[in-house]
Amino acid sequence: MKCKFCEKEAYIKLYHPKIPLCREHFIEYFERKVRRTIERYKLFKKDERILVAISGGKDSAVVSYILKKFNYDIQCLYINLGVRGYSDKCEEYVKKQCKMIDTPLHIVKIRELLGSGIGELRTTRPTCSYCGTTKRYISNKFAYDNNFDVVVTGHNIDDEASFIFGNVLNWNTQYLAKQGPILPGEGKFVKKVKPLYEVTEREIVAYASAVGIDYVTDKCPYSKGAITLRYKEIINQLEKIRPGTKIKFVRGFLKKRHLFEGEIEKGKINECKVCGMPSGGKVCSFCRIWDLREAVDLSIK
Amino acid sequence: MKCKFCEKEAYIKLYHPKIPLCREHFIEYFERKVRRTIERYKLFKKDERILVAISGGKDSAVVSYILKKFNYDIQCLYINLGVRGYSDKCEEYVKKQCKMIDTPLHIVKIRELLGSGIGELRTTRPTCSYCGTTKRYISNKFAYDNNFDVVVTGHNIDDEASFIFGNVLNWNTQYLAKQGPILPGEGKFVKKVKPLYEVTEREIVAYASAVGIDYVTDKCPYSKGAITLRYKEIINQLEKIRPGTKIKFVRGFLKKRHLFEGEIEKGKINECKVCGMPSGGKVCSFCRIWDLREAVDLSIK
Repeated sequence: MKCKFCEKEAYIKLYHPKIPLCREHFIEYFERKVRRTIERYKLFKKDERILVAISGGKDSAVVSYILKKFNYDIQCLYINLGVRGYSDKCEEYVKKQCKMIDTPLHIVKIRELLGSGIGELRTTRPTCSYCGTTKRYISNKFAYDNNFDVVVTGHNIDDEASFIFGNVLNWNTQYLAKQGPILPGEGKFVKKVKPLYEVTEREIVAYASAVGIDYVTDKCPYSKGAITLRYKEIINQLEKIRPGTKIKFVRGFLKKRHLFEGEIEKGKINECKVCGMPSGGKVCSFCRIWDLREAVDLSIK
Repeated sequence: MKCKFCEKEAYIKLYHPKIPLCREHFIEYFERKVRRTIERYKLFKKDERILVAISGGKDSAVVSYILKKFNYDIQCLYINLGVRGYSDKCEEYVKKQCKMIDTPLHIVKIRELLGSGIGELRTTRPTCSYCGTTKRYISNKFAYDNNFDVVVTGHNIDDEASFIFGNVLNWNTQYLAKQGPILPGEGKFVKKVKPLYEVTEREIVAYASAVGIDYVTDKCPYSKGAITLRYKEIINQLEKIRPGTKIKFVRGFLKKRHLFEGEIEKGKINECKVCGMPSGGKVCSFCRIWDLREAVDLSIK
């Protein structure tokens, strides 16, 4: 099969739109799509200081690579979660990825900072739940303490569609209201954005391979059997039946998201007594989970 | 496996709650569930005149059987859609079903009334779309012209979950606002209710077999490949992973349905120039589709 735009052999056949593209035209297509996402949703400006939360996986590797290529002012943050047999391997990949794009890399090691790794903490909360809280807290505080304007994550359309899908299935409408490609900053909350919001996992894998990005393919051992993986399978089934379902579902959601705005529980936002960061109660959930007596220090030395 | 409540062999093992029941205890369970739906959603009162729209299939056969058993004042309406090789077969079943429960049956034959059968009409609209319009119009006008208080349909939770699912997937929020076990009557719109709203297809099949109801198992030839059938499969996959998903999804929806109320397009309701029934435009979609010059006469002779 030939590329739609030149005489070369096709490297990939896209599902939606249904076109075959050679390697070069696919790279161009993919990068244009990401650039348009940045523009369409006004994610950030040229002069903003960007912190990319990087994990070793394909998504964050691709987003950091592409932002660097677009000449944005980026630095990367890797949070080593201390998951034995997994986190250190990811760290090695992250180092190679940042070296490849010649970008500063900051590493926060949970075990050193907090005394134990994810999965080893005694708590009643599920592992993925307090891991999520920990990652969100650290990336936000790191960005805030070191004057970044925005935190970038590698979430793609498969992640977003499955998140929306799960929250609709359970009618967790309060989560839907805040979901989207950009979460504006407010007070000590630094702005969070998702430049890969409209590209699929399949396209990301193909792009990484096309430009020579190496990444960890193992999943975190704690993620096994996660219901979100089933949601992704289901959405991919629907996409096969009707190509374009995924993007229509996500964009359709964004158009109707305002319907859920009244569902956000608006409690008073306090300053956490321990760390001074925003909190619903007296002590924020991060400081509570890790039973902290003083704020973690994340300033770049 | 023994019944949970007696020493008899189990007739069915329910998925949610996960209990085995003998034939008698299953019949009791199923009927209690339907009775509770009628009470919970206040579908109708003892003295209301009920018209059951009956098709020959399992759902409407079961709902008419059970309402008769509960001593409601019911009559049945069969709309023969004139689908060759299908509708006449359904009519035979309907006659047997109504004879079994000793209930008056009215038959409206589309071919005689309107000149051609469903699927033979020259129109730009998809067959299932104008068939739906036709069935809704006829059952409503029949009920209105003959002083019924309520129209009962056999929709079950699989139908409802897949309808909600499809409309969420496409964010057809205006359809979601009106979806539910009861659509109140207003003006010439007679109240519509769904007593099987909380029972599954599987339970209905088991109940029909338990009480000896015979029904058509063929699907309408025009329904083949309908996307709603895929939605049902997907919801059943989710139900297998997490039993109870279906009922939680539908009940969760009902709790949040008010969020979609503002989405209903509130046009002026006129009287159709041809038939006098409610219409968005000058002529209602039924009279337009069938190109009518005068109202169809549906009064019982």
